[in-house]
Amino acid sequence: MSRRILGIDPGLQTTGFGVIETDGPRLRYLASGTIRTKEAAQGDLPNRLRLIFEGVREVVARYEPTDASVEIVFVNVNPQSTLLLGQARGAAIAGLLSFTTSPQVSEYTALQMKKAVVGHGHAAKAQIRHMVMRLLELPREPHNDAADALGLAICHAHAGHAMAQMARMTDLSRRTHAQIKGGRVY
Amino acid sequence: MSRRILGIDPGLQTTGFGVIETDGPRLRYLASGTIRTKEAAQGDLPNRLRLIFEGVREVVARYEPTDASVEIVFVNVNPQSTLLLGQARGAAIAGLLSFTTSPQVSEYTALQMKKAVVGHGHAAKAQIRHMVMRLLELPREPHNDAADALGLAICHAHAGHAMAQMARMTDLSRRTHAQIKGGRVY
Repeated sequence: MSRRILGIDPGLQTTGFGVIETDGPRLRYLASGTIRTKEAAQGDLPNRLRLIFEGVREVVARYEPTDASVEIVFVNVNPQSTLLLGQARGAAIAGLLSFTTSPQVSEYTALQMKKAVVGHGHAAKAQIRHMVMRLLELPREPHNDAADALGLAICHAHAGHAMAQMARMTDLSRRTHAQIKGGRVY
Repeated sequence: MSRRILGIDPGLQTTGFGVIETDGPRLRYLASGTIRTKEAAQGDLPNRLRLIFEGVREVVARYEPTDASVEIVFVNVNPQSTLLLGQARGAAIAGLLSFTTSPQVSEYTALQMKKAVVGHGHAAKAQIRHMVMRLLELPREPHNDAADALGLAICHAHAGHAMAQMARMTDLSRRTHAQIKGGRVY
């Protein structure tokens, strides 16, 4: 089944997004970019949250993703930053889920994303950019925020593919079991 | 000028809301209640954020407030709680600002709210409930979450009234100044 996945890397100053299409193991790049709030609404937190909400809504309206893959954010050393990041993520998820038919939202940590894209969890930014470029056959490396968002979309595509494979294997093992049990070949 | 103020006390489990109308120093109760997410969507954070967003949207659509007064939340001892509270607040503010004509959002701390409602910042929950009941001439005390939300609306009403008074005083002082300067009585 073909799916269209929107990756979201939330942040108060910059929220990255990336859209890919997937049909089994095949991945296709559709779009990516960032929603920036710094210049547009200095100091005014409600207005910055509105820009994130509206920006995410606009991306969903334009690309109509079936799935969304949002980074699980972690507590910062600075508690005030944690609070601001949390609010940005809340506004972004509200944007995803503000439609009558909203995408299905899944959540992944940066570690899971790095493992899915680079193969291990200690990948540097440059490695993520490079692997995202290769996996999606882009003409050049995407910017950091967009690369992370595309990485989240790829992570969700792999997870979905792995789950589909697992479902097939489970199905197979059930058949095997039934064969033994019933002595019949299906 | 008559204003309709929606107070919002954000929380992931319970978001309180309260709507009042104000015409100068006079306050009139319109509605209050809570948006609860615990029973409705256990464990699923995106779905809980969606319920907060949609709940706030519904209140705004029904009561069409001109102003919104949202509590400024603070960092918790538990950083994970801070992160969750932040996300709830982000979804609530997205709900307020998701209309073509959205209410004007102001932000107040719990301390400012208590000072406005009880007269000092160390007020207990029971004192807030009691004063909100008296100020809005309610037949009985509201519940805690609704009381805080109504308190935030009252706080904004007082701030607006004080600012209007200040504007009048400034206007008056300008006139006085002009009188002296020009030697004319206006």
